[in-house]
Amino acid sequence: MVNNDAPARTAARGYRRIATEEAFAPASVLELYRNLKLDDPGFNSLWGFYLNSPSERAVSVIRRLQDLGAERLADMEATGIDHQIIALTSPGTQVFDAATARSVAIEANDILAEACRAHPDRYTGMAAMAPQDPASAVKEIERAVRQLGFKAVILNGHTLGEYHDGAQYWPIFEAAEALDVPIYLHPNAPPKQMIAPFLEAGLDGAVYGFGVDTGLHMLRIICAGVFDRFPKLQFIIGHAGEALPFWQYRLDYMYGAGQRARRYPHMPLLAHPISHYLANNVYITNSGVAWQPAIEFCQKVIGVDRVLYAMDYPYQFQADEVRTLDEMSIPDDHKKKFFQTNAERVFKLVD
Amino acid sequence: MVNNDAPARTAARGYRRIATEEAFAPASVLELYRNLKLDDPGFNSLWGFYLNSPSERAVSVIRRLQDLGAERLADMEATGIDHQIIALTSPGTQVFDAATARSVAIEANDILAEACRAHPDRYTGMAAMAPQDPASAVKEIERAVRQLGFKAVILNGHTLGEYHDGAQYWPIFEAAEALDVPIYLHPNAPPKQMIAPFLEAGLDGAVYGFGVDTGLHMLRIICAGVFDRFPKLQFIIGHAGEALPFWQYRLDYMYGAGQRARRYPHMPLLAHPISHYLANNVYITNSGVAWQPAIEFCQKVIGVDRVLYAMDYPYQFQADEVRTLDEMSIPDDHKKKFFQTNAERVFKLVD
Repeated sequence: MVNNDAPARTAARGYRRIATEEAFAPASVLELYRNLKLDDPGFNSLWGFYLNSPSERAVSVIRRLQDLGAERLADMEATGIDHQIIALTSPGTQVFDAATARSVAIEANDILAEACRAHPDRYTGMAAMAPQDPASAVKEIERAVRQLGFKAVILNGHTLGEYHDGAQYWPIFEAAEALDVPIYLHPNAPPKQMIAPFLEAGLDGAVYGFGVDTGLHMLRIICAGVFDRFPKLQFIIGHAGEALPFWQYRLDYMYGAGQRARRYPHMPLLAHPISHYLANNVYITNSGVAWQPAIEFCQKVIGVDRVLYAMDYPYQFQADEVRTLDEMSIPDDHKKKFFQTNAERVFKLVD
Repeated sequence: MVNNDAPARTAARGYRRIATEEAFAPASVLELYRNLKLDDPGFNSLWGFYLNSPSERAVSVIRRLQDLGAERLADMEATGIDHQIIALTSPGTQVFDAATARSVAIEANDILAEACRAHPDRYTGMAAMAPQDPASAVKEIERAVRQLGFKAVILNGHTLGEYHDGAQYWPIFEAAEALDVPIYLHPNAPPKQMIAPFLEAGLDGAVYGFGVDTGLHMLRIICAGVFDRFPKLQFIIGHAGEALPFWQYRLDYMYGAGQRARRYPHMPLLAHPISHYLANNVYITNSGVAWQPAIEFCQKVIGVDRVLYAMDYPYQFQADEVRTLDEMSIPDDHKKKFFQTNAERVFKLVD
């Protein structure tokens, strides 16, 4: 529930700020990451940095990820964030064996649910689950939505190198559609079979590899025909849509050309051009992109009702970015949709 | 040289249309491709399709690539293209051993130079070269520019899996800067060490893999410090800048964060944020993207003097796209820069 008793400054600016791609991590999960021996260069690059670097960035991210209480609430107060939509940080459960992944999902969801109960006006949860075991994932999504009050599902890129366009994962999509909750496809580093040319140049992480891999993953799900089978299913992708809105013309032209020529006979013929799915099955947040040109571009191309605000706390905890976005020269009603009402609708925050 | 005696309809519309990423291939090179046994899934996917598919698309592309005479001139006439900047099609020389690559470059340049001499008002050449042997590449670039009158260098993505940010390739960059000719970084399919997740889903080619790989390549060259060493060097990238203008905010934020934290100690500290190099060392063409939103975005972010028209003939031979671009609702002077005067300046087409 969003508290209608908003602070005066919220009333003054005319909208609540709801941040929709915010992260947490229980200490127990960070400890599992610390002890994990994984043949995954992307995981090792990302978590090797955050868990071991003495830099101010790494130290503050690790501390803030673990807090769902005083520090997080003070940070929200300091930057004028009224409400966070929170998920277990990437890669979440998706680097573990199935049994560990199942128990991590349950534990993370229970911890997050407790924080949401303590601060219902401040926090809303996204459900962790273990795609390694799709049947258990469906059950945990149902529990998280029906019993814990969560409003979305978090999926963090590939699971141990596997993307989720394959038919074995479709029960997860079926459950999300039936429960009417969106799936947030959050970045992970590119998998082992792709990462080498990124990693060599320090481009594997949020700077570029994340976006490329998440765009690829979203396209794989579209091109596998998932939205032809589940037309009401909604995904959310961050970082200004991982550049897919910008690629839209070329995606339509070249995917269409390839389909007409049957260049890839194993791929299904889609019912619509790729842009149709972007406009009907994908919401976009601006996480990591506090920049009017990209936000306006997405509003124009994908639709002003489909672009949502996100801070990406604690990875991009920047008060100046909030101010910059408040000052965007876009119509007031577009700004209110961006910061508040689109999120209220997508995450069902108001009755 | 651009002929000042332009057709009446050119005068009527107020600008010449100069297409800047146009391709050709001698029959001898296509024959080498046909007989090449290469452990490169991207090459095999791309040229396996074009050389073997009975589809209208593949057949017409293969026929048109080989023509530098009547059919090409008729196609230009039919679509109102006044001038083509032409390069050996991707991957050019870059799939061969060094000796073959050297001779292919010389042969392709000689064939293209002959066509340019026959139709100086219609064609301008970009120089092929063999990056497998940088010293020979420098000599061939010098010959092509000084003796053949070529106005740019073509570089088609990776060479046998290797990107060109490494110091062994910097003599090529030094030569291009000294000769004051731009390097067109044209897509190739992602290399073997990256392509698997794209290829599985039919996304390795122009639909998505090309753009991702070319963006990565451009970023690797920037992040290696090439433009700090050669500040006057100019690159050109197509396809609306391979989405790098759209990624600009995140690139600056996250590369800066990584540099401050020294996340990758082997990477040099850059003198400027990545956006500086995009605005000072990179020209952009709209090849493959006949779409006002992306073109205007690039003009706004990178600069109206840095965005050029391209058709991507014969891969995207579309008269309707030319008409769409003629009708863009942008200022007349921006349109003239886009179609004509930027290309005249970048390729030194007028004395």
